[in-house]
Parts: sequence; structure tokens; C-alpha cells
Amino acid sequence: MHEIGRVAVPVPAIDEVELHRLMDEVSLIGGGEGGSMNRLTLSKEDGQARDWFAAWVRNRGLRLEVDGIGNMFGILDWAGPDAPMVMTGSHLDSQPNGGRFDGALGVIAACTAVDTIKQAIEKDGLTPKVNLTVVNWTNEEGARFQPSLLGSSVYTGALTLDFALNRRDGDNISVREALSDIGYAGEVAPALPDAYIELHIEGSDKLEKADLKFAAFTRYWGATKYRLAFLGKQAHTGPTPMAERKDALLAAAYLIAELKIMADKGGLDLHTSVGRLEVLPNSPNVVPAEAVLFVELRSGSPDILQSAEEEFRSKIEACAQRAGVGYEVRFVDYRKAGRMDEGLVNLATKTAKSLGYSTLYLDTIGGHDGVALADKCPSIVIAVPSVDGVIHHPTEFTTPEDRAIGTRILTAMLWDFCIHGNVLKS
Amino acid sequence: MHEIGRVAVPVPAIDEVELHRLMDEVSLIGGGEGGSMNRLTLSKEDGQARDWFAAWVRNRGLRLEVDGIGNMFGILDWAGPDAPMVMTGSHLDSQPNGGRFDGALGVIAACTAVDTIKQAIEKDGLTPKVNLTVVNWTNEEGARFQPSLLGSSVYTGALTLDFALNRRDGDNISVREALSDIGYAGEVAPALPDAYIELHIEGSDKLEKADLKFAAFTRYWGATKYRLAFLGKQAHTGPTPMAERKDALLAAAYLIAELKIMADKGGLDLHTSVGRLEVLPNSPNVVPAEAVLFVELRSGSPDILQSAEEEFRSKIEACAQRAGVGYEVRFVDYRKAGRMDEGLVNLATKTAKSLGYSTLYLDTIGGHDGVALADKCPSIVIAVPSVDGVIHHPTEFTTPEDRAIGTRILTAMLWDFCIHGNVLKS
Repeated sequence: MHEIGRVAVPVPAIDEVELHRLMDEVSLIGGGEGGSMNRLTLSKEDGQARDWFAAWVRNRGLRLEVDGIGNMFGILDWAGPDAPMVMTGSHLDSQPNGGRFDGALGVIAACTAVDTIKQAIEKDGLTPKVNLTVVNWTNEEGARFQPSLLGSSVYTGALTLDFALNRRDGDNISVREALSDIGYAGEVAPALPDAYIELHIEGSDKLEKADLKFAAFTRYWGATKYRLAFLGKQAHTGPTPMAERKDALLAAAYLIAELKIMADKGGLDLHTSVGRLEVLPNSPNVVPAEAVLFVELRSGSPDILQSAEEEFRSKIEACAQRAGVGYEVRFVDYRKAGRMDEGLVNLATKTAKSLGYSTLYLDTIGGHDGVALADKCPSIVIAVPSVDGVIHHPTEFTTPEDRAIGTRILTAMLWDFCIHGNVLKS
Repeated sequence: MHEIGRVAVPVPAIDEVELHRLMDEVSLIGGGEGGSMNRLTLSKEDGQARDWFAAWVRNRGLRLEVDGIGNMFGILDWAGPDAPMVMTGSHLDSQPNGGRFDGALGVIAACTAVDTIKQAIEKDGLTPKVNLTVVNWTNEEGARFQPSLLGSSVYTGALTLDFALNRRDGDNISVREALSDIGYAGEVAPALPDAYIELHIEGSDKLEKADLKFAAFTRYWGATKYRLAFLGKQAHTGPTPMAERKDALLAAAYLIAELKIMADKGGLDLHTSVGRLEVLPNSPNVVPAEAVLFVELRSGSPDILQSAEEEFRSKIEACAQRAGVGYEVRFVDYRKAGRMDEGLVNLATKTAKSLGYSTLYLDTIGGHDGVALADKCPSIVIAVPSVDGVIHHPTEFTTPEDRAIGTRILTAMLWDFCIHGNVLKS
């Protein structure tokens, strides 16, 4: 028995077997050896996962809508057009050689929670006070197309649809082409929700270390992402005198080392990285003409982030000079630091407590679709433990027990909305 | 009138128009904007260039033979099976986005020289004293498959055919598959020649600076080439604490900077480079799990090369430790430093002088098929100027006039062999 305010209504129990079955089913799509997952956004595998999700939505009596950037919405507008809408979900795309739970757990848990509630409401003849939507966002990962959070950012209006559709991958295929290839270029998006709740794996080991099962992300780090090209001159690595070389990769090497020094100086509040490096022509005996770095600066503090960017700009200049090459900033993406909705944090805490779990409050450093949503509507990302804190790796794992705990808390939060209306205003 | 010893026989004049026509014809295959050439070994374009060469060989009455690694030989064994054989040629493969003259000039000049001599001998009813072979070597460049000089090294026995056929490119296609795809997996190679002469573009600007037109490479640098993988751990660039990251690319960056320092200390006698770097999974928000470097150390001195390799090994260890990652040496290729055949150097000098050109003696630092041959038979690489010393770049250029000078000297050297037999023994 779960009590909110004056009314006591039992939160329906989830079907754990079904939860794990759904997870196993979706893990087969793009899944490989040793837990490896390759479901790059808008790939053939992502298309198959989308087909799977669309079938689930239709089979369970929800209405499927797909918007222009391919976000998929399973809509249950049983409370009528004037009722609030609560959205839950995450993303089915993965990193290359990534794990099975990042994103997928949030979609599967959302499916399970909404289905559980739908069955309970219908069985008991209750009147739901809010509409529910299960969402699968396009390109959360940003592995194939940059920037990440592409679908949710278009949905909130932070990016224009046209800009997003024109992003191109390393093979020069555009989002527009890739969407059309797998048949998920839709048209209309539902209006912004009145609340957005996303369950995710933690992706670090703070819950494990604290011996807890549940976290709410209360603050999200900002990120400043640069796509930066050093421009040298192609030449033979044999006869070309060392003094005459203009080696773009050498400048990149200097900058990668400088970024590490910046993070070391910045303490725990600054993360820096170069995750992707494209070298042209990338031939063993040719001095690199071009080196394109995908640089990230991340911090929970807007001030630290800004001064880091200033330092970074001066390091670019210094490294280019030291290697005798030019450079070009090709793209900069800013994601603001901020806070999740306090009402939703309180609801998560209260709900978890009623089920016997303490809530650990964390920063989220990685981007989440829930962070993109937070800019426009009450939003929260809640989390269950990652074994050893692993994420973006085949050994990424969240135990079946912990998946069920997160799904039960999510179900109970949505149940509150359905039974009591907009609990955030209470 | 060109005089060698007691007999004066006029060296036949080359057809310059035909020389330039052949060069233009072959430049169309894989040629792009601004002088760019993309004729990667065993690619579709390389296959077309091979078809072009095969047609030329047959049209001119030579016999075509192709060996197991795809080296193509246009054979004119008019002097009988017991006569010496003199081979000339180079390679038709190019770097990605490379130039038109590297390799191709040597093949075109060889075609022109042999054809000129064949017509003159036949017209005047002379008896040739040596057989002639025009050769197009497989994968001189080493851009798509490593190591470079693959075809000529198999021909001399420095590499086994099986090893060479099992080399794989970045798309995991083997040399065996690629050869079979374009239909150039042959069977039998002719015996080693009694002399090998290769005309090449200089690839540096020493001739230009000396205001000369002709060079002979008398010494060849050695090269020690490593394929080295740093092994880190894939993780999210967001939440993963900096102190826990094992960033393979960071170790690579440290090593690239160290290699530059080594070359700076080594003066003019040591060249170092990293021309190719493969990053895995190479996703903007994933800490790199693997960084594979294609490192080259080059020197004209075996001693410097050996001590450079020792220093390099200790730097690998230090950089791996500094970044907290592991490493794996995946492949090492040693090319010895050495000297070209003195008799051929003398012949080149004498021949050039008789045509009015002084010879500049140079080291060759880049590999040439003539360097691979030098290990097993008298061999020489002769050179004409590269405008501004450019090589491996679309702006690589050798003027029509200089191409003709090189071809005339090559023709005269081959003419000496045909008229006087083995002039090296005189």
C-alpha cells in the first residue's frame, strides 16, 4: 500500500518476468560477444530496435507518433486533450561496442511501467488524471552524428530540425538520409510534457560505494564541445626534412597532453577529453595534413567551464604555433550546467522512501535526454547502480534486481500522477 | 652520337610526344582535382592502370608475365635465354590524395625507353646483347597494405608470398582477396635481373637548389617501422573520474611528442614520424580504448637507427606508464641502410655526362623498389627534379622537359647494355 496525501491507492506491481524478457529481447538487436552492443543511431540495428518498439506500442494499445527527427512517442491520451501529459523513456541507440543498458533500460522500464499502470487502471475502472507517453529519442549518444541529444534537443527547440537533419556522419551520410533509409522520418511531435521522468543506469560507482540502490540526478554538468582541425601539409615521411614538416597530428598530440594538464589542475570539477581523432590522409608514410579533434570540456560550474574554454583557446593557438601548423574551429556546442526540477526530486525521494530506498543525490556529468528536457519543462533523471561504475563498454551491467527496483520506483511516480494529477503543484 | 668504348652507336632519340601522351593517359586513371591522384594499390583504379599497362605491353610486342603478388613484367627476351636481363620500371600505385608522378614516371619512362630501343634495334637489324624487362611493382606505397615495397620484397625473397598475401587493409580485406578481385593474382616471376634501373622523381628539392637536372641515389636510408597499440579502457568521457581513465590516445599523444624530440636531438641523420593513427572506438564521448600508431624511424646510419630504436622502446614504456595504459608491439619492419651498385652509379654518371648533365649524388630516404632490389642484384634509382621538392601531394610535379631528360638518360643506359652487353663488368 502506497500513500500520497489523503488517498491510499495500491501501486500496481510490475511483472518482473516481462521486464527482463523485454530487456533480453531488445538486447538481441545489435548485441554481440561479451555483452557488446552495436546499435548506432539510425543504423540497420537501430531501425530493427525501432520496429520492435513500434510493435510494442501498437500491441499495447498506445498510439505511435514519430516526429521529423525520428523521435518515437507511444501515446496514451486516455485523460483527454486538456489533461497534463507525463512523459517517460530514454533512447535505444548505443555507442559502438557499447553496453546493453545505457538508454535501453529507460525505454524498457517506461514500457513496463506504463503497461502496468494501464492494466491496473483499466482493471479497476479508475479515471486517470494525466496522459502518459513513452518516448524513444533519436541519437542520444552522439557517436555517429554530433551533437549528442540530437532528438531531444530538436524536440525542445534548442536545435532546429533543419540543422539536425543536415548533420553528417564519418561516411558523409546525413541524418536526413539515414532516417529515410530506415523509414523513421516522421512529421509531428506531441506538445511538451508537464513532466518528464527518465530512468537510467548510473554510469559511475557512487551508488555502489554508498551501498545504495537509487539515485536522483539533481544537478547536471555543462559541456563545451569543440570540433577542431589542425591544418598541416601532406608530405613524405621519408625524404621531407624534419624542419620543413607541418605535421597536423603533432599539434594534436601537444593539445591532447595540454588538455590532460588542464584537468589535473582543475581538480574534480573539470573533465577534459579527446574521444575522437580523425587523421588525414592517415597513411603510414605521409606526414598528416589534417587532424580533427573532438574535444570536450565538462564542469558542473558555469564559471569553471568558461575559464577552461578561455585557457583551451589559448592552448590551441600555442600548440599550432609549436608544430608550425594552422587550425580551424569547425563547430562548437554548448550545453548549459543547471538543476533538475525540485518538485520531481522531492517526488522521487518520497516515492523511493515509501518503497524502502534512500535516495543518493548526484550530479550527472554525461548528457541525458532528461537534461535537454530540463530546459523547457519539469524533468528528472533517476538512476540505479552500474556494476563497477562501467558505462559505454560491453561489460556495462545493471543487475536484474536493480533494474526492477528502478522500474518499481518509476511506476510508483507515474502512478502518483495518474491518481492524483499534477503532484508537483501540491 | 654517344660513344662507349671503341664502338660508336647512336642512341636512338625518344619520342617525347609519345612520352607525354602516355603520362597523360595514365594520369587519367585515378586522377582528380588539382593534380590529385588516388590509385591505391589493388584498388579498382589500380586495376585499370594495370589493364592499361598490360595492353601497352602486348601492343608493343612484349610478353606479359604476372607473379603471385601481382608484379607485372613486360618481357623482351630477344637476346635468348642465356643473355643477361636488365630490368627497368617502378610502380603505378599511389598514395591516397597523392601525386601523378611518384612511380608512374618510372613506368612510363621504362615503356618509352624500351620501345625506343626495340624500334631502333629492329630498324637497323642490330643484335641486342641483353634482354629487357619493364616492370610494374605491386604496393610500393604501403598506404593501403603494410609494409611498403611489398611486391619487390616478395620478388627478391625478402618477404614470403604467403606473408604478403595475408596482409590486410583497414577494411580487413587481404592482399590475396584484393589481387583476385582485380584479376592480377599470377603465378610465375622471371629470374632476378642482372641489373635494375629505376627512374623516379626526386621527392625533395636538392636538385632544384643545386640547379641541376639529374641525380643518382648512391646510398639508401634504413627504416625501422613499428605498428604499436596502446591499450586503455573504454569509458564515458562524462562521468568517468579523470583519475580513473585509461586513455590510450593520451599515451599516443605523449609518444608522438617524444618522437619529435628524438628527431630534434638526432639532427639531420634521424627522421621520425607517425603518419597513421587508428583510434578505437573513436567516438566523441568515449575514452579511447585503443590507439594504434604507425611509427617510422629512418636514418642513413645503421648505428643511429639502432640506438634510436632502443630509445624509442624506452619511450613507449614511459608513455604507457604516464597514461596508465598497456601496450602491444604488433609488427616491426626493418629495412636496412646500404649503398647502390657502384658500377651502375658510374654508368649513370658517364651516360648523363655524355648527354650534357652533371650528376648529383643523393641519399634516398624514402623506400624505392630499387632499394629492395639492391639487396639481391646490381640496382640503381636515378632521379629528375620535383618542383619545390613536393611528393605525396596533389601539387607534386616534374616538368615535361625534366621527364624527357630522365627518360633520355634511362634510354641511353639501357642502350649501352643492349649494344655492349654487361657494361658493369668493364
